Amino acid sequence: MIKVGIVGGTGYTGVELLRLLAPHSQVELVTITSRAESGRRVDDLFPNLRGHCDLQFSSPDIETLAACDVVFYATPHNVAMQMVPELLATGVKIIDLSADFRLRDAELWSQWYGEPHACPELLAQAVYGLPEVNRNKIADAQLVACPGCYPTAVQLGFLPLLEAGVIDIDSLIANAASGVSGAGRQAKIDNLVSEASDNFKAYGVEGHRHLPEIEQGLSDIAAAPVAVTFVPHLLPIIRGIHATLYARLTSEVDLQQLYESRYENEPFVDVLPAGQLPQTRSVRGSNMLRLAVTRPQQRDMVVVTVVEDNLVKGASGQAVQVMNILCGLDETMGLQGIALLP
Amino acid sequence: MIKVGIVGGTGYTGVELLRLLAPHSQVELVTITSRAESGRRVDDLFPNLRGHCDLQFSSPDIETLAACDVVFYATPHNVAMQMVPELLATGVKIIDLSADFRLRDAELWSQWYGEPHACPELLAQAVYGLPEVNRNKIADAQLVACPGCYPTAVQLGFLPLLEAGVIDIDSLIANAASGVSGAGRQAKIDNLVSEASDNFKAYGVEGHRHLPEIEQGLSDIAAAPVAVTFVPHLLPIIRGIHATLYARLTSEVDLQQLYESRYENEPFVDVLPAGQLPQTRSVRGSNMLRLAVTRPQQRDMVVVTVVEDNLVKGASGQAVQVMNILCGLDETMGLQGIALLP
Amino acid sequence: MIKVGIVGGTGYTGVELLRLLAPHSQVELVTITSRAESGRRVDDLFPNLRGHCDLQFSSPDIETLAACDVVFYATPHNVAMQMVPELLATGVKIIDLSADFRLRDAELWSQWYGEPHACPELLAQAVYGLPEVNRNKIADAQLVACPGCYPTAVQLGFLPLLEAGVIDIDSLIANAASGVSGAGRQAKIDNLVSEASDNFKAYGVEGHRHLPEIEQGLSDIAAAPVAVTFVPHLLPIIRGIHATLYARLTSEVDLQQLYESRYENEPFVDVLPAGQLPQTRSVRGSNMLRLAVTRPQQRDMVVVTVVEDNLVKGASGQAVQVMNILCGLDETMGLQGIALLP
Amino acid sequence: MIKVGIVGGTGYTGVELLRLLAPHSQVELVTITSRAESGRRVDDLFPNLRGHCDLQFSSPDIETLAACDVVFYATPHNVAMQMVPELLATGVKIIDLSADFRLRDAELWSQWYGEPHACPELLAQAVYGLPEVNRNKIADAQLVACPGCYPTAVQLGFLPLLEAGVIDIDSLIANAASGVSGAGRQAKIDNLVSEASDNFKAYGVEGHRHLPEIEQGLSDIAAAPVAVTFVPHLLPIIRGIHATLYARLTSEVDLQQLYESRYENEPFVDVLPAGQLPQTRSVRGSNMLRLAVTRPQQRDMVVVTVVEDNLVKGASGQAVQVMNILCGLDETMGLQGIALLP
Repeated sequence: MIKVGIVGGTGYTGVELLRLLAPHSQVELVTITSRAESGRRVDDLFPNLRGHCDLQFSSPDIETLAACDVVFYATPHNVAMQMVPELLATGVKIIDLSADFRLRDAELWSQWYGEPHACPELLAQAVYGLPEVNRNKIADAQLVACPGCYPTAVQLGFLPLLEAGVIDIDSLIANAASGVSGAGRQAKIDNLVSEASDNFKAYGVEGHRHLPEIEQGLSDIAAAPVAVTFVPHLLPIIRGIHATLYARLTSEVDLQQLYESRYENEPFVDVLPAGQLPQTRSVRGSNMLRLAVTRPQQRDMVVVTVVEDNLVKGASGQAVQVMNILCGLDETMGLQGIALLP
Repeated sequence: MIKVGIVGGTGYTGVELLRLLAPHSQVELVTITSRAESGRRVDDLFPNLRGHCDLQFSSPDIETLAACDVVFYATPHNVAMQMVPELLATGVKIIDLSADFRLRDAELWSQWYGEPHACPELLAQAVYGLPEVNRNKIADAQLVACPGCYPTAVQLGFLPLLEAGVIDIDSLIANAASGVSGAGRQAKIDNLVSEASDNFKAYGVEGHRHLPEIEQGLSDIAAAPVAVTFVPHLLPIIRGIHATLYARLTSEVDLQQLYESRYENEPFVDVLPAGQLPQTRSVRGSNMLRLAVTRPQQRDMVVVTVVEDNLVKGASGQAVQVMNILCGLDETMGLQGIALLP
Repeated sequence: MIKVGIVGGTGYTGVELLRLLAPHSQVELVTITSRAESGRRVDDLFPNLRGHCDLQFSSPDIETLAACDVVFYATPHNVAMQMVPELLATGVKIIDLSADFRLRDAELWSQWYGEPHACPELLAQAVYGLPEVNRNKIADAQLVACPGCYPTAVQLGFLPLLEAGVIDIDSLIANAASGVSGAGRQAKIDNLVSEASDNFKAYGVEGHRHLPEIEQGLSDIAAAPVAVTFVPHLLPIIRGIHATLYARLTSEVDLQQLYESRYENEPFVDVLPAGQLPQTRSVRGSNMLRLAVTRPQQRDMVVVTVVEDNLVKGASGQAVQVMNILCGLDETMGLQGIALLP
Repeated sequence: MIKVGIVGGTGYTGVELLRLLAPHSQVELVTITSRAESGRRVDDLFPNLRGHCDLQFSSPDIETLAACDVVFYATPHNVAMQMVPELLATGVKIIDLSADFRLRDAELWSQWYGEPHACPELLAQAVYGLPEVNRNKIADAQLVACPGCYPTAVQLGFLPLLEAGVIDIDSLIANAASGVSGAGRQAKIDNLVSEASDNFKAYGVEGHRHLPEIEQGLSDIAAAPVAVTFVPHLLPIIRGIHATLYARLTSEVDLQQLYESRYENEPFVDVLPAGQLPQTRSVRGSNMLRLAVTRPQQRDMVVVTVVEDNLVKGASGQAVQVMNILCGLDETMGLQGIALLP
């Protein structure tokens, strides 16, 4: 059994880790931390877990964490990077769901997050945890930075086009929309039902923190600098990301065939048959990412539509997928739940 | 023109007062206060008001308020009662949308609100602002306490039965549900989209602050002590209250006729034709309260279903109705907007 | 492996059966029927099933069904009763999710469903599939009528009070609300997003088809005729039933203790700790029913609040629970999924 | 008083016309037709109109319509074009909210709508009813084709850029999303709450009927052929369109100044201050269209975000605006309602 600790268990990625890990046959949940809720039963805060999890929140404690095999950080940015150096030294494997280790360039990180990086020397060591790109590196890593929710959808959507070199990489557009759970479990007026439930808006158009992560990832894939216009929107649903990606084709290619062959062996990427378009509800609660590739009016613009559950493939599910790889388990273990539809 | 001031303009009852008063032909909006947002344009916070309201929020100031004809308090409880005595002395008419002057018994108030009442001597002077019951008293009042959202629906629902003396007054049940805007514009985790939008629950079953107000009002109408079991629920919509009221009949009566004749001349109570049931959307944004009276299976239990928009007839619309009465205007002025359906 | 057939697979209880049965370790899905969609892949209609179910819809065929061990009817009423006599004769076990075999009185059935019952002689043989009441009878049954969604919540909510004989059984009130999926997957204007999504209303107040089922069930439990006022409401959510039950206490009793001891060994009834109230989201996608018992203001009215997922414990989950019992499997097999929260 | 008839009053654009016209001080509603609901009171179908509209639906009748000053067609496509020639001959002014007269090219129309146009000879005479472009022509028209909901948002969003000639017109992208009311009041499974309320998807990517209308309108504005990639999405809200428009800048320009000066005198186009982004709720129920122009990361891609209420500025409100112009009234009459927020 793999001993698992979770740091920062009161947010939505925390409770989602618990939902996925509690029934995982190879995992023993050892500790889940929260300073604010220390001493409170987890299932008191999250009543869906009644009968499935007997843990209480506790204050984070390096010794307890060091006794785990794997520790997940489900914290806001700027928490993991303060604790990781000490914990890493104990030999524990660390899977960070926050943004702290996603960018390789510490200066770029500082520019977007507004403070110096606490351990820039670890950035080169951290593996970017997108299994469809970095599966082998993840298997050998000690520190994995899980991709952001938007970057997962955008990268997997553009990936086959970039690898095939059939699009103009200077004018990519990623128009994306996320359910409100992406904003986290924080008391903010903007995310109240009365503000955000019967509404739709773009936000962060001038620059969203996922932009440099997206551009770094796409540039890695293309092996050349890629520029993206990225516009996120806030959807009046709880879970789900939908990305609509635009790229100008520079050569003729069988798009359907390109996508199907690239993702043929990927357990969590589903290329829809030609003529179908993905819907967020088809992945609600599931680790599957579904996508479709289209070429409207047979002009030279390719449009890729992608859906994922931002809390599963976009966060906690992908983190469990990473854990399975790290620990030599079947990559799909504990992740085969069927999406809840309707 | 009636000079109007609003104290506490950043909440939902505040913006709703602005929506109703900005186009009111006899009203001049003079001042709207908010300590926290002082100096900010109102339409910067509430973009629906762009082009309709040029005011900025300002700090509350007794002199400015004293220069108004009418001042609305759209504040949480325990604010109005601190300021009202001084302002009342200047002769201004005051319409309080909060709970501060709704109960006549200062001790009961303290028991439910957890602190002593700041000016118990004014409680007897305050008129309970339910026009369908107190129209004449309101016309002569200087201080009006607007009813709560639930109490408006529950009282107008039971009113004809109580006046007619045809039900058992010891076992009334008021099962009610409110949209989330009833919880106010406050940063609380419980009211986030991710918590409350795909959910339904009862709350405050052990005792909700509207219970003593409901029992006081129903007892006044019945001229005898009335006991109610009141269970509120939280609806995953923004606006709307629905009350399902249960009472045991003690005499035979033509219920449809009873309700229609009682509310025949009420501009804002609509008794639906027999066979129809009210829906919250039929009053969305409107000051109308709609209700139906039924007797399932012709047994001895009468069921009254009532809908209102909690921010209009349940709060700001009723307050404007009160203002119209207070100021000798046509009671319906500025309140004839049609509900937004679909 | 248990060979399973599903008749009527295009509705919401059909797809929910598939979601629960596809990963069930002891089940082999043999056939799923739909006249309208015959020949279409199931996962084309329900994309959440892609990768989990390779079946196509086929026309119902008695021979194929007769080769199954268990056949589920997930059809509207008046379908199962036409086919069941012939199929029953082949020895197959039948679990009917529709209303056809829920009432023991054929005349009562006709009165509520507007047509004669097709096989009244089978009504006495059919077992009412509420495991918490009829577990032993279910184990020996060949034909099980699964309870309706509302009746499940209402019966399990009142059960301990009725068994203990501590309430007045002449004046029970069941105020309940259901998500829209309860209305089925039918093209009806009333259930469009534009009609029902930002709305709340009562319906069927004069008489809902679940009323006679509820009264039959409660009378069985009480061993005396029970009368209920039942008012259903339509919630603007997809899944979830919430029932608020009212009963007048006739003797003193420790309510919390009564409920906890009655349901101590029930795997799918969760009595919440005193002070907590159930929320529909805490059972979204799960077979758990959660409830709380309260006594507002310590008066003599007991209020029980109950939640279930109408498609799981209220329909398909309960049907699988019945199948597990019928087939001698662990009753919880395939039903331990954790509710999706947030 | 202007005598008004409405053909096809049971859809959402029909009820929205009634909501806007019932209180319009210069309008007398003479007739509203529906074959299916003939004889039924309008407020029986649409309870928000109780007390505001005493009409009954009647079968369409050329004589009654000919006695009107203005007739609105709020019908699906292929209805108006069958009736308009005869009615036009009587001298009545006709405002068609459907697609029948939007395209000038009858063959193009046939290609997208799948049948021959019934009166191609009238296409040249029909004025495209976008006041911000065609105000003067509308004033003199007898037959006006109101723009589609998406085309209104997309055209007004790109307009200043095209007029100024500062963008590449070969690679425009219009990524748009609409509330479900845009799909009309039709019994379709796809638009049920259980299907579309907790979901987001693109649709019509291969080609949506609004594409040729958008390209015709933008080409008119640019006085050159414009190509657009148009991807509509379905939002889980009732009302509201949001368009996110992308264009590559070909010259330097002060974008904020360009938009503000172009729309300075437009009563129903609101250019937000720099730094603000529009939200659908800020126009809910209002005829205002709000937009913002941004240039992310100061690169060469301009992003325009636009919101409107699809039933108001995107349909019935714009039709009333057209009527006001046609009849020489103040263009804003009856259209100054403030958006319902929250």
